[in-house]
Amino acid sequence: MADNNPAFVLQSIKSTSFEQREIPKLRDEHHVRVHIEQTGICGSDVHYWQRGRIGDFILNSPIVLGHESAGTVVEVGSKVKNVKVGDRVAIEPGVPCRHCDFCRSGAYNLCEDTIFAATPPWDGTLQKYYVVASDYCYPIPSHMSAEDGALVEPVAVAVQIATVADLRAGQTVLVFGCGPIGALCQAVAKAYGAKKVIGVDISQARATFAKSFAADDVYVVEPSATSGGDPMDASRAMAEKIVAKYGLEGGADIVLECTGAEPCIQAGVFAAKKGGMFVQAGMGKENVVFPITTACIRALTIKGSIRYTTGCYPKAVDLVASGKINPGALITHRFKFEQALEAFELVKKGAEDTLKVVIQGVQ
Amino acid sequence: MADNNPAFVLQSIKSTSFEQREIPKLRDEHHVRVHIEQTGICGSDVHYWQRGRIGDFILNSPIVLGHESAGTVVEVGSKVKNVKVGDRVAIEPGVPCRHCDFCRSGAYNLCEDTIFAATPPWDGTLQKYYVVASDYCYPIPSHMSAEDGALVEPVAVAVQIATVADLRAGQTVLVFGCGPIGALCQAVAKAYGAKKVIGVDISQARATFAKSFAADDVYVVEPSATSGGDPMDASRAMAEKIVAKYGLEGGADIVLECTGAEPCIQAGVFAAKKGGMFVQAGMGKENVVFPITTACIRALTIKGSIRYTTGCYPKAVDLVASGKINPGALITHRFKFEQALEAFELVKKGAEDTLKVVIQGVQ
Amino acid sequence: MADNNPAFVLQSIKSTSFEQREIPKLRDEHHVRVHIEQTGICGSDVHYWQRGRIGDFILNSPIVLGHESAGTVVEVGSKVKNVKVGDRVAIEPGVPCRHCDFCRSGAYNLCEDTIFAATPPWDGTLQKYYVVASDYCYPIPSHMSAEDGALVEPVAVAVQIATVADLRAGQTVLVFGCGPIGALCQAVAKAYGAKKVIGVDISQARATFAKSFAADDVYVVEPSATSGGDPMDASRAMAEKIVAKYGLEGGADIVLECTGAEPCIQAGVFAAKKGGMFVQAGMGKENVVFPITTACIRALTIKGSIRYTTGCYPKAVDLVASGKINPGALITHRFKFEQALEAFELVKKGAEDTLKVVIQGVQ
Amino acid sequence: MADNNPAFVLQSIKSTSFEQREIPKLRDEHHVRVHIEQTGICGSDVHYWQRGRIGDFILNSPIVLGHESAGTVVEVGSKVKNVKVGDRVAIEPGVPCRHCDFCRSGAYNLCEDTIFAATPPWDGTLQKYYVVASDYCYPIPSHMSAEDGALVEPVAVAVQIATVADLRAGQTVLVFGCGPIGALCQAVAKAYGAKKVIGVDISQARATFAKSFAADDVYVVEPSATSGGDPMDASRAMAEKIVAKYGLEGGADIVLECTGAEPCIQAGVFAAKKGGMFVQAGMGKENVVFPITTACIRALTIKGSIRYTTGCYPKAVDLVASGKINPGALITHRFKFEQALEAFELVKKGAEDTLKVVIQGVQ
Repeated sequence: MADNNPAFVLQSIKSTSFEQREIPKLRDEHHVRVHIEQTGICGSDVHYWQRGRIGDFILNSPIVLGHESAGTVVEVGSKVKNVKVGDRVAIEPGVPCRHCDFCRSGAYNLCEDTIFAATPPWDGTLQKYYVVASDYCYPIPSHMSAEDGALVEPVAVAVQIATVADLRAGQTVLVFGCGPIGALCQAVAKAYGAKKVIGVDISQARATFAKSFAADDVYVVEPSATSGGDPMDASRAMAEKIVAKYGLEGGADIVLECTGAEPCIQAGVFAAKKGGMFVQAGMGKENVVFPITTACIRALTIKGSIRYTTGCYPKAVDLVASGKINPGALITHRFKFEQALEAFELVKKGAEDTLKVVIQGVQ
Repeated sequence: MADNNPAFVLQSIKSTSFEQREIPKLRDEHHVRVHIEQTGICGSDVHYWQRGRIGDFILNSPIVLGHESAGTVVEVGSKVKNVKVGDRVAIEPGVPCRHCDFCRSGAYNLCEDTIFAATPPWDGTLQKYYVVASDYCYPIPSHMSAEDGALVEPVAVAVQIATVADLRAGQTVLVFGCGPIGALCQAVAKAYGAKKVIGVDISQARATFAKSFAADDVYVVEPSATSGGDPMDASRAMAEKIVAKYGLEGGADIVLECTGAEPCIQAGVFAAKKGGMFVQAGMGKENVVFPITTACIRALTIKGSIRYTTGCYPKAVDLVASGKINPGALITHRFKFEQALEAFELVKKGAEDTLKVVIQGVQ
Repeated sequence: MADNNPAFVLQSIKSTSFEQREIPKLRDEHHVRVHIEQTGICGSDVHYWQRGRIGDFILNSPIVLGHESAGTVVEVGSKVKNVKVGDRVAIEPGVPCRHCDFCRSGAYNLCEDTIFAATPPWDGTLQKYYVVASDYCYPIPSHMSAEDGALVEPVAVAVQIATVADLRAGQTVLVFGCGPIGALCQAVAKAYGAKKVIGVDISQARATFAKSFAADDVYVVEPSATSGGDPMDASRAMAEKIVAKYGLEGGADIVLECTGAEPCIQAGVFAAKKGGMFVQAGMGKENVVFPITTACIRALTIKGSIRYTTGCYPKAVDLVASGKINPGALITHRFKFEQALEAFELVKKGAEDTLKVVIQGVQ
Repeated sequence: MADNNPAFVLQSIKSTSFEQREIPKLRDEHHVRVHIEQTGICGSDVHYWQRGRIGDFILNSPIVLGHESAGTVVEVGSKVKNVKVGDRVAIEPGVPCRHCDFCRSGAYNLCEDTIFAATPPWDGTLQKYYVVASDYCYPIPSHMSAEDGALVEPVAVAVQIATVADLRAGQTVLVFGCGPIGALCQAVAKAYGAKKVIGVDISQARATFAKSFAADDVYVVEPSATSGGDPMDASRAMAEKIVAKYGLEGGADIVLECTGAEPCIQAGVFAAKKGGMFVQAGMGKENVVFPITTACIRALTIKGSIRYTTGCYPKAVDLVASGKINPGALITHRFKFEQALEAFELVKKGAEDTLKVVIQGVQ
């Protein structure tokens, strides 16, 4: 039946429904069709659901939600070489135009014509079948679960952050945030041979998890640390406390900011070593008060990380397949496809003990 | 006479005097003594004079002022190989410790134990004789004037900024500021083969000079551009206007911020291309409101530039000696050594038509 | 008439003919059809004609010759945005697959599925019309001749060599070879702000041209320099002579080897500074005797350069359009389309006074 | 007693003796005196003993042998801050001049005025006391043995090789040689997160050790592989066999050549991926037949690695202290100071089962 393709659709802001859609067709001979088996929910999915837009991407017509998925290839175009029917694959959700200067120079994460799953106007992966370019599908070994395959996506985000940071073995790494992305950045840093990895969070629960997951140590920010007095002074004091407590000797070689919170951004700059690296990965307020003179005098390098580039997915698959990173440990809740809305409601709540939520695909 | 060494001394905040000092002795067999012939005045000299401190460097006892100098070698230590008595040299004003990790890894601009001329507690070059490590003296050819030799210093600052920016031939470069450092950054960019170099300033006079000096074009910010309405919106609008006017196609490859002014910093971020480079070189307010989300989404690299590293002085000498850059064109006023205080008063005024002021040494 | 497309075809080794071919159709909506106006001849064209193969590329069926071309766009696909009918363009002759890891990471010069003009089994540009992907067409300004547009190709080769060499302003550059590629490398180095550029050749005529074209100085290798005695000693002696004669102080920062000749490769290693860069761009013998211990002790970086990557063509167009490089000065002979075989015969002879030969397209 | 400093001295080629030497004095206030506790023997020590020279370093007068040492600080100069009396330290054996351009730019391994232990005319560490600049002493933790401290030296050599190779997590690494340096390169690659590390050797014993030490797998070259037929064809065949056997998909990302053997150098080039990295670390014949066209067409980067640069020793200490690398496993033989000649004789034999030999210091 050409229409046997149940989908979880965002109709408009805060309004979702289940639909029977047509089974999507291969767009050209380089495409494949994947039977989706597991999908993780990400903050951006919830954001579109609740707000209908992120930056310039605005929900003007219904889209299928979901973009962190793995499944099994069920149809391949005539020119597909890297996968075959029956292969289990992790899906990279954004396929760029391949023709612009960004694509041609390897910076395809900056392509303005990317077809990105569940980013308006493009449909996502919370449907039975998803069609995607074959080179954006990465085979996963048989010993790797579909859940882990779906979570290759956030692992790839963390790999890109480490790549942007030019993270090297032997470095000290300070990660603000112990949620899924922060914890995975910590795990990637450890897998890359970092000398010392410290996680920071305001939640004791998340920090405790992060320490059990990968971090060498974690720092829980006391609420008082960021209230009262001059906020910048408070941020500087927090940074100095962290640097002293963990013996970071002049500051961390690398700071990965995965919260988007203003005090963390500020503290991150103060906690970075002279000549060090600060990567902004979290998204929060559009504008923040920023210690630019400190950044300048310390000759810091400050970079933004967005999406993934070539090599992130293969590296992420390998980190999971080799057991160096176990993203399954992040999963706190599992739902059936029919319970997709419940899953979204749970993520929306943002409870401390909700890390990663996954939705099983339709069989 | 061992005490024939007139010096222009900052005794305390806003208080200077001329002193007869002892002729300084070589500190070890790697040092040389230079008879100073010309010295440029820099904003930081005036800052110490008027405020007595910059950051952690605090004037607690008198220091000789001046740090942009050239002169003739009159005495060399026994192990000196690179210069000999009679050589005319440009002097790099900061000699690092050579033992810390920064020094050992080539980032000596970050050394915390640098002896930097006219930075408390170290004496500067506004004296007849100055003693310095020989490897921080760079021979200048006979056809190069001592004035140009003194101005190798700001050229070297601009070379370091270009180095930090990883500035390459074929790039588009937007420089905020058309004062000496901004104009020299524009000149270095052109000498490095930049495709298009645009200067920005609020002063029509400085902009006009910059265009005659090196820039392909200059943009004069209208006062109204930064007043009224949301300041960030105004900064963004300024950036969009510049990008459109000069055909920067998605933004400049490189933005060099040489003013330290908050609206320029903000506009610089908005005017940078996705994946582009922004270098903060000017110093102004400690903290600014910063468009961090734009920086992140555009995957910008933001770096601070401070002082100089290995290779800056030789490159700067070569740029001047080869005629690619003519820093003498920046000189608007010349003073005798005895008029040093007048020279400082003039720079303090900061008139639009005062670019570079030089003081002739004692003969 | 669908068959009004005269073409100069290599039928088999040493056998060419003129054919009337069908006007080629756009391969997809991203393609354009270009009316070819000028085509330069390159050594590889002659090589296929005389030998029928280069490496793994073997002539098994007829191909149209020619790959250095410029012309006017006469038809565009529906998705083409960067050019329109009537635009004059330089054509990058190799269009990669866009799907392999090399393409996706920006190293498309390494793509194994590139459609490269006049490389078996792909047709070249010595025909009236040529169809190519639009993003591999680069508009040239109206003041730039079609001849110069065709010669953007060898300029782009030189830009890629400079890119591989990470050539920076202020460096000393030694270029082995003063033929078209060598001379253009010298010109690119100068345009990029090199401090000193020295060309080397065995031909006084080519050296004389190179000096008039861009090099600061040229060194003519005496035949005796490479004959008699131990060849490696002779190469080392040649290197030492060059280093001493041109004051390269410990060796050149960068050596660009554009001849493929064994003595030049050897001399290039000996003439490179410790920590310096050596780029192999010329192709000659498969294997050479190589001073590996010197390369190791000097901590050299040795790289191979092949074809072009993103940015080479735009930079090359700009270098020519801005007048920084005048490739037209390389043209020693001009032919009509009907004289294509004569043109090839001339290049085959390889006379000292034959630099670049161009063939006018069919009108 | 000022003369209580027994030393093992190379008097002239093949002639050693034990001497009582004066206790060395601190050379300046930045130096320290170390009581040597353990010293490893390296091939270069044996080379000076047997041949009296390596390259331009020629034995013209007696020198104390030994340069891989650890011990306890017994005297510190007045300006020493990083260590104190009683600290146990690993000693970096080469202290550069700190004044040349190489030193100032962080490439101190290329300094021509380095004082390198046991390199003529400088004395080595096989004496009771050794004086060295304090910043070339690195504290080792109390749980780390002096033997491991001595072996920080070869670990640092491997760290530098990995640094030169720009070795990153997720890469495939092929290491020619399973002796101490080869095996340590394999261990560093694993600690740095390499995806797959393959060692190659002609000795089954060394290969077996390497596999137990760090390599994911090892390849033993059959003698027939390099005999008969065209040597280059044999090298290529060896490379293809390795690439196929270990699934290196187009070749290894990184090849580390630690043997200096011509067939390995050749095979290394053929086994490297397009765009890949080949680092020459072993020293053998001055000149080898080299597949330059393959290196060029594949756009390889070929680099030489020599000694160490800033950060190698701290990283090496950390790799050992953290247990990521256990260099003690390399030690096959231990000798008392009085048996130093026996130790050298053993290393000279070069038996398959002799990996690392250490000599205990005088108490």
